[in-house]
Amino acid sequence: MTARILIVDDLAANVKLLEARLTAEYFDVLSATNGTDALRLCRDDRCDIVLLDAMMPGMDGFEVCSRLKADPATAHLPVIMVTALDQPSDRVRGLDAGADDFLTKPVDEVALLARVRSLARLKMMLDELRSRAVTTASLGLVELTRSSLDAGENGRILLIEDRAASAERIVSALRGLHEVTIEADPQEALFRAAEGGFDMAAVSLDLSDFDALRLCSQMRSLERTRALPILIIADLDDRQRILRGLDLGVNDYIVRPIDRNELVARVRSQLRRKRYADSLRSDVQAAIELAAVDPLTGLNNRRYLETHLASLLDNAAHQGRALTLMILDIDHFKSVNDSFGHDAGDEVLKNFARRMRRVVRSADLICRLGGEEFVIVMPDTPLAIATRVAERVRATIQSEPFCIDAAGRTIPVTASIGIAERGREANPDSLLRRADKALYESKSAGRNRVTAAAA
Amino acid sequence: MTARILIVDDLAANVKLLEARLTAEYFDVLSATNGTDALRLCRDDRCDIVLLDAMMPGMDGFEVCSRLKADPATAHLPVIMVTALDQPSDRVRGLDAGADDFLTKPVDEVALLARVRSLARLKMMLDELRSRAVTTASLGLVELTRSSLDAGENGRILLIEDRAASAERIVSALRGLHEVTIEADPQEALFRAAEGGFDMAAVSLDLSDFDALRLCSQMRSLERTRALPILIIADLDDRQRILRGLDLGVNDYIVRPIDRNELVARVRSQLRRKRYADSLRSDVQAAIELAAVDPLTGLNNRRYLETHLASLLDNAAHQGRALTLMILDIDHFKSVNDSFGHDAGDEVLKNFARRMRRVVRSADLICRLGGEEFVIVMPDTPLAIATRVAERVRATIQSEPFCIDAAGRTIPVTASIGIAERGREANPDSLLRRADKALYESKSAGRNRVTAAAA
Repeated sequence: MTARILIVDDLAANVKLLEARLTAEYFDVLSATNGTDALRLCRDDRCDIVLLDAMMPGMDGFEVCSRLKADPATAHLPVIMVTALDQPSDRVRGLDAGADDFLTKPVDEVALLARVRSLARLKMMLDELRSRAVTTASLGLVELTRSSLDAGENGRILLIEDRAASAERIVSALRGLHEVTIEADPQEALFRAAEGGFDMAAVSLDLSDFDALRLCSQMRSLERTRALPILIIADLDDRQRILRGLDLGVNDYIVRPIDRNELVARVRSQLRRKRYADSLRSDVQAAIELAAVDPLTGLNNRRYLETHLASLLDNAAHQGRALTLMILDIDHFKSVNDSFGHDAGDEVLKNFARRMRRVVRSADLICRLGGEEFVIVMPDTPLAIATRVAERVRATIQSEPFCIDAAGRTIPVTASIGIAERGREANPDSLLRRADKALYESKSAGRNRVTAAAA
Repeated sequence: MTARILIVDDLAANVKLLEARLTAEYFDVLSATNGTDALRLCRDDRCDIVLLDAMMPGMDGFEVCSRLKADPATAHLPVIMVTALDQPSDRVRGLDAGADDFLTKPVDEVALLARVRSLARLKMMLDELRSRAVTTASLGLVELTRSSLDAGENGRILLIEDRAASAERIVSALRGLHEVTIEADPQEALFRAAEGGFDMAAVSLDLSDFDALRLCSQMRSLERTRALPILIIADLDDRQRILRGLDLGVNDYIVRPIDRNELVARVRSQLRRKRYADSLRSDVQAAIELAAVDPLTGLNNRRYLETHLASLLDNAAHQGRALTLMILDIDHFKSVNDSFGHDAGDEVLKNFARRMRRVVRSADLICRLGGEEFVIVMPDTPLAIATRVAERVRATIQSEPFCIDAAGRTIPVTASIGIAERGREANPDSLLRRADKALYESKSAGRNRVTAAAA
C-alpha cells in the first residue's frame, strides 16, 4: 500500500525528517511550508493524505484543517494533525476542525506508518466510490455529498467489553451523544454486528477469554460487517497488537486511561467517515436507479420495460403461469397541452400515474412508455381478472376531474385501454402489438373504454 | 487486511496445516475436501479467495477452477492453485483453467501470506465495484460483465528494463500475443505510463541506477497509473524485495530464468483482471449516464435539461453572454401514431433526433422533453443567429420525407419551432415559457414555421 502524502510544516528540518521516513517506506512525498500552499496542492488533487503541523506562523494547522474540511473538493482528504505537545486541548481543537487523526512530536515512526497505511487503504476505497459519485453529480443527477456536513452524532455504537466498570466509563463518556449497546460475549457481538443497525464497533483489546483481534478480523471479513468502523480500546503496552489491528483493517484506537474529549472526537470522526462513504454509495445507487425511471412521473421507463418484459414473460412461460399486459392512452391529451399549456399536461400525467398506482398491485409493473402512453404488466393474472383491473383503472381515471394547476382548475380526463394475455409465444413485441391493437379498437369505438385482445 | 479463505484439499492434514497458518494471521478460514462442496461454497458467496489443491480424486483442481471461472457468479473469485510438484506443465494447465496464481508444496509461508494479502486487497476493491455493477445488471441496464470471457491477449505492455539482452528475451516470449514497448529510463517510464494506453507494466527489479520498487510505488500512488497492473521480474534471491513489492501493491512477480509459458500465463491473468475491473467501472459509468438519456432517441432527457439549463443560464449571465433556447414540436405527430402505429412514430422520433444533431453545433444541448417535443439550448448564440439555425432545422426536417419502416414507406414531417433569448432574469422556467409561447404562435399561424419571442 502506498500513497501521496503532503507534509505541511513551516520548519524545513521537520519536513526533511518526516520525508525521509516516509520515502524510505516508498511513499510519495510532497511538502508545503505554509497553509496557503498546502490548500492549493490539496485543491489541485495532488495528494491522498495530509500530515499537518498544528503550529505554524500565519495560517495555523487548525485553520488549514477547517478550510480543507469546509471545501467539498477537499473535505474527503484524510488529515493527520501533528501537535508539538501532547496537549489534550490541542487534540480537541484539531478534532473540532475536522482532523481525522493525531500524532504528537517527536513522531513515533511505527505509529506514523501504521496510521498512514490504514488511511491510504481507506482513501483508495473512497476514491473508487467518489469517482462514480462525481459523475452522478456532474450529470446533475444528485448533489455531491459533502463529507464535512455530518455532525458525527447520534451514532449507534456496539461496545464489546467484558469488564463492567470499564464499559460503564465508556458509556458515560458518550452519554447524550450516542446510543451505546454493551455486549460482553464476543461471538454474540459478531452476530449483533452482522444483524446491522450499528454505526461503529468499539472493541476492548483485552477481553478475558477471547482474542479481540480475532473478533476484529472476523468483522472485517464478514460481508455484512465489512464497512463497520472499528475502534479498539487498548492499554499503552499493547502497542504491537494495536499495530496488528490497524494492519487488519481496524480504523482507529484509543489508549487507556481514556480522555473523554478524545474519545468523543475519535468516535465522531469515524461516524463522519462512515456516513460519507455510505452516502457516496447511495448516491451512485440512486443515480443508477434513475436510469430506469421516467423523470416526470417516477414510474419505470421504456428502457426498464423493454429489458424486464422479456424476463417476466420467460418466467411466466417457464412456470406455466398467466401474464397480462395493459396499454393505456390518455384520450385527447394533445388538446390538454394545446389549450392549457405543458405544465397542465404534466400535471395530468403525474396525477394519472398516481391513480394507476392506487389501483394495481405492487407486483404489477407500471411504466410510462412515452408521451401519454403507459403500460402495466400483470404477472400471474389471466385475462378475465385483468379485464376487471383495467375497468377499475378506467373508472378511477374518469371518477373525478384532474387538477391542472395550483389555482385548483380541473378538467375531465379519460383513458382508452387495450389488454392482451400472453399466448404460447413468449415474445414481448407480439404481446405489445396485440395489446396496442386492442387499444386502437378502444379508440375507434369512442374512447374511454377497455378492449381485450382475442387470444 | 483480512479475508475469508476457502481451502480445498482432499487431505485433512493439508487443510489443517494451511488453516493453522492462515488463522494465526487472523484470516477467516473455511474448508472443503472435494470440488463439489467447494463450488457450492463459492456460489453461496461464502469466501473471498480460493486456495485450491490441483490433485484431488474425482473432480480435480483444474476442473474446479474451470467451473468457477465459467460461472458468472464466481468468475471474479481469485483462485490460487496449489500444485504438488513444481511442474511447469501443471502451472500452464492451471493458468489455462483460469487460475490467478500458484504455489507449490511444501507451501512457503511468507509467499503464501504475501499472495493472499495482495489478492485480498484487490478483492475488496472489486467487491465495491461489483456491488454497483450488480445493481445495474439487475435493473437490466447493462449485462453483468463476465471476468472469464476476456482472452487476455493483445495487451499493450510497457517493459521497464535497462539490460538489452533481458528485455529482448521478454519481448520474444510475448511476441505475437502482445505489443511490448521497452523503456530503459525509469523516469521516462513513469511519464509514459501516466500518458496512458498501456494495459500492464513489467518492471525489472534490478535496474542499474534506480530502485525499481520506488518506480512501482510511484506508479501506484499516481492517479493516472494507479489501476495499471504491475508485474515484477526478479531473481530468486530478491525474495525480500519481491515481498516488499507485493506489499506496495505490485500485482504479481515472475522469477528468472523466465519460463515462457509461465510469463504468458501470468500476463494473461493480469490483463484479464484489469479488463474485468475496467469493464465493471464502465458498466456503472454507463448506467449512470443512462439516467440522463432518453432511451428512444439517445438525446439527453428532461431530467438532464432541468438540472443543466439552470447552470448554463448562470454561466451566460455571469459572463454576460447570449443564450437562446429553441423548443420544437413535430406537427400532427398524433396522426402518425394513429395511422401507422407506434413503431412508425418511434422511427419518426429517432430520425427527427438524427436530423437535429446534424444541424446544430456540438456545444448545443439537444434534449427530448417528452412525447414529440424537443429543446435545443444554444449557449453563446444571440436571437438573430438562433433564428437562422432554427430555420435550418425546420428546412432539414421538411427537406425529405421520413422513412417509417423497413419496407421503405415514407411520410412527410414538419415541425413548429419557438425560440427565445435569455433576458435579464436567469430563470429557466420563464425562458422555457417564453419559447413555448412562441412555439404556440407557430402552431396557430399554420405550423411548419419558426417564431421568435420578443425580448
